[in-house]
Amino acid sequence: MTHTPIVELLSSDSIHQEFTVKGWVRSFRANQFVALNDGSTINNLQCVVDFENTDPTLLKRITVGAAVAITGTLEESQGGGQRVEIKVKEVEIEGDADPEELKKTILSPKRHTLEKLREQAHLRVRTNTFGAIMRLRSKLSFAIHEYFNKNGYYHAHTPIITGSDAEGAGEMFRVSALDPENPPRKEDGTIDYSKDFFGKETNLTVSGQLEGETYALGLGKIYTFGPTFRAENSNTSRHLAEFWMVEPEMAFCDLDGNMDLAEDFIKYVINYALENCQDDLAFLEERQTKEDQSKPAAERAAMPLREKLHFIVDNNFKRVSYTEAIDILRNSKPNKKKKFKYPINEWGADLQSEHERFLVEKHFKCPVILFDYPANIKAFYMRLNEDGKTVRAMDVLFPGIGEMVGGSQREERLDVLKEKMAALDISEEELSWYLDTRKFGTCTHSGFGLGFERLVLFVTGMTNIRDVIPYPRFPGHAEF
Amino acid sequence: MTHTPIVELLSSDSIHQEFTVKGWVRSFRANQFVALNDGSTINNLQCVVDFENTDPTLLKRITVGAAVAITGTLEESQGGGQRVEIKVKEVEIEGDADPEELKKTILSPKRHTLEKLREQAHLRVRTNTFGAIMRLRSKLSFAIHEYFNKNGYYHAHTPIITGSDAEGAGEMFRVSALDPENPPRKEDGTIDYSKDFFGKETNLTVSGQLEGETYALGLGKIYTFGPTFRAENSNTSRHLAEFWMVEPEMAFCDLDGNMDLAEDFIKYVINYALENCQDDLAFLEERQTKEDQSKPAAERAAMPLREKLHFIVDNNFKRVSYTEAIDILRNSKPNKKKKFKYPINEWGADLQSEHERFLVEKHFKCPVILFDYPANIKAFYMRLNEDGKTVRAMDVLFPGIGEMVGGSQREERLDVLKEKMAALDISEEELSWYLDTRKFGTCTHSGFGLGFERLVLFVTGMTNIRDVIPYPRFPGHAEF
Repeated sequence: MTHTPIVELLSSDSIHQEFTVKGWVRSFRANQFVALNDGSTINNLQCVVDFENTDPTLLKRITVGAAVAITGTLEESQGGGQRVEIKVKEVEIEGDADPEELKKTILSPKRHTLEKLREQAHLRVRTNTFGAIMRLRSKLSFAIHEYFNKNGYYHAHTPIITGSDAEGAGEMFRVSALDPENPPRKEDGTIDYSKDFFGKETNLTVSGQLEGETYALGLGKIYTFGPTFRAENSNTSRHLAEFWMVEPEMAFCDLDGNMDLAEDFIKYVINYALENCQDDLAFLEERQTKEDQSKPAAERAAMPLREKLHFIVDNNFKRVSYTEAIDILRNSKPNKKKKFKYPINEWGADLQSEHERFLVEKHFKCPVILFDYPANIKAFYMRLNEDGKTVRAMDVLFPGIGEMVGGSQREERLDVLKEKMAALDISEEELSWYLDTRKFGTCTHSGFGLGFERLVLFVTGMTNIRDVIPYPRFPGHAEF
Repeated sequence: MTHTPIVELLSSDSIHQEFTVKGWVRSFRANQFVALNDGSTINNLQCVVDFENTDPTLLKRITVGAAVAITGTLEESQGGGQRVEIKVKEVEIEGDADPEELKKTILSPKRHTLEKLREQAHLRVRTNTFGAIMRLRSKLSFAIHEYFNKNGYYHAHTPIITGSDAEGAGEMFRVSALDPENPPRKEDGTIDYSKDFFGKETNLTVSGQLEGETYALGLGKIYTFGPTFRAENSNTSRHLAEFWMVEPEMAFCDLDGNMDLAEDFIKYVINYALENCQDDLAFLEERQTKEDQSKPAAERAAMPLREKLHFIVDNNFKRVSYTEAIDILRNSKPNKKKKFKYPINEWGADLQSEHERFLVEKHFKCPVILFDYPANIKAFYMRLNEDGKTVRAMDVLFPGIGEMVGGSQREERLDVLKEKMAALDISEEELSWYLDTRKFGTCTHSGFGLGFERLVLFVTGMTNIRDVIPYPRFPGHAEF
């Protein structure tokens, strides 16, 4: 017996025709009205049971959370809430949901906190909020692949287990197949990693960029989209130990091209969500509005969710050099009134979240791309400008989120790159493969990294990054 | 100065118009003909230099591997090898490639073994063979996302770091942030993992299936597509320690639906490659034909590459029960003549690669789906049949590859599942979240796993799985 997804039926015109639908009961009112959800859409299908001619023991099993198969005809709905409904001919219970047991879970029909939902992450996707979030996450993910595929980029699957901590982007997790209680040891007593699975020490990747560069310098334009890891004890609402990162890399592309790409790319995927996820966005917008009512004015969203997304799609991102940004910040009210936790006194200061948010939310009131940062606060592979003190770095800053994208034009000159590495004590031998890209037909090239969960956070209007990934990993938490 | 991808110019009709192209020199003949490749296609663009009016020191720098920017007009080609060519106005060298240094690498213009190419995996994507493989890999990856997106599946990003070895699919890599030389210890002297990053022992995932099931039972139809890991000392041409797996999971779907999906899905992505990667497939087909000339007849490909792919797309996969397969094998010539390393004597035997290949390559001569395997050679979560001894498992077997897909209808009955777990000593407590899916609205559901690299291997006609992933990880190897 085939069944029809509810999302199709809700927009179907096949009135009086018979269909079978299968899903989970969201509510059962007046012994008559089943609200059925099958995950294909946030919207429930109303199924009207002829209770007078239905076995009472069957009716009793139609409870919240139960899995049921319903066959009946599609009819125009008399009630106000929906266009169509199913006039039920037959109900079959696939799986019961004991109301007493259900009460102990977040599936029970009452409000649960996000913290509580997180503890039952294996069930939360069955709630309206998390169904909407995860459908959006999926659609954003697809939009990313579609954008790059359309524009001539190849997907490069860079390695997850890596033999080097080259980028120095953060603390790494170790990967090993040795018995940790009794590892083989060298003569000096230290662990003998030559006996480990890979014959050396290995870690989980913090970025696919360096490997991505080697692929861009062969295929022209590539992107990665995979999990990356940080073993940092960051117990915040914006950090995860395991998160997904998108990293495009383009040969023969300078920083201007890089900024153009970042802006075009972000607008494309947000617009894709606006066009393909209207119902889920409408639900999340309403949710945010309700949540905001109990918040102090300063913490409320500046615009309704979809208006915010349209604002991003419809406006140019403001491009501002680091040097200009420092001037603006130095002369800003909060700086003069000593409201910043980290006052901005001079050129060279590393910008903190409070500064980024001031620029984006108060000063420019739109996404901002900062570029040409001081060399000494940025990574070794970024291209040195002619001034000798700034590099061709760029960060895209978003309201409420801060850094959405970090990227740069890469240092393609072998001698300059080697000098930078020497100054930072990075081994040429360990990165000889990376240096080879500069030896044989080196060229201008650029790329950036976008933290996928930050994008999902922005588009869903959620405030904790742990709520936009199915099973979040953070200090003390690797359940499921 | 913007530039145009070579793939666009090669099919362009904009004769006499000026373009700039940027790429790497593949050859430079007669001081006049530059074959330029930019990775956008396997085909080179011929650029004809007016050598009599070009600075000789510039001409000398046009060497194999050099990165150049060429501006000129697009003209119909007089030579036989191409439809159009560029009449060069200006050449700019972006990056030299010292011929003496280049000689030491696989970029030097001569034949290199695949083993040699693997050692320089950071450069091999610049060869024709690996450019073709990696473009195909990318297109196959996109086809997978497109197929599921079109058909109402949501992409679920299941976790990479996991707290349980639930599936028991294989040996796992340990993940830790403790100092391995000096880990914190409990009173009994063993390592105190409560002090580790996640507060417990963690591993790299071997499969996203169990978490995927929890999502299918909320969103209806989902798929995962991410890296999975095996710490097994398998030094073969068909195993990797890190590989990408695709795992769809469908609520309200039985084993027949699962087999239908597997067949439809595989045909879709292979057909996508046929339609979108003609040039790369033609190149790899020719490559295989040439390679086969130096192989004994028994090891040669049965059909040219594209014919093989069309054969898959155009024919039904043969569905055969395990019991039928055992009968066929028991009565087969190789079994009677004792040619199998593992003779098939009775029902219950686990099928080896030699048996799978006999069925596919000799007996049925087409892809085969085996189903209803003995329960005791399959995983605990597979649905028990009414005979009490077989489970609703299925494997899709491909010529030359063996198992391409392994899947099953899942055991949705809580009591039966618990019995199975008890018999195998799997802790109910550790999998309580998984059991919850059977407690609250359980339903018929099914899914499978496809090893992505096996698919790429099949479609490219390559024979070693290490050659179809950018940076292969296998025992003793985690370079780059």
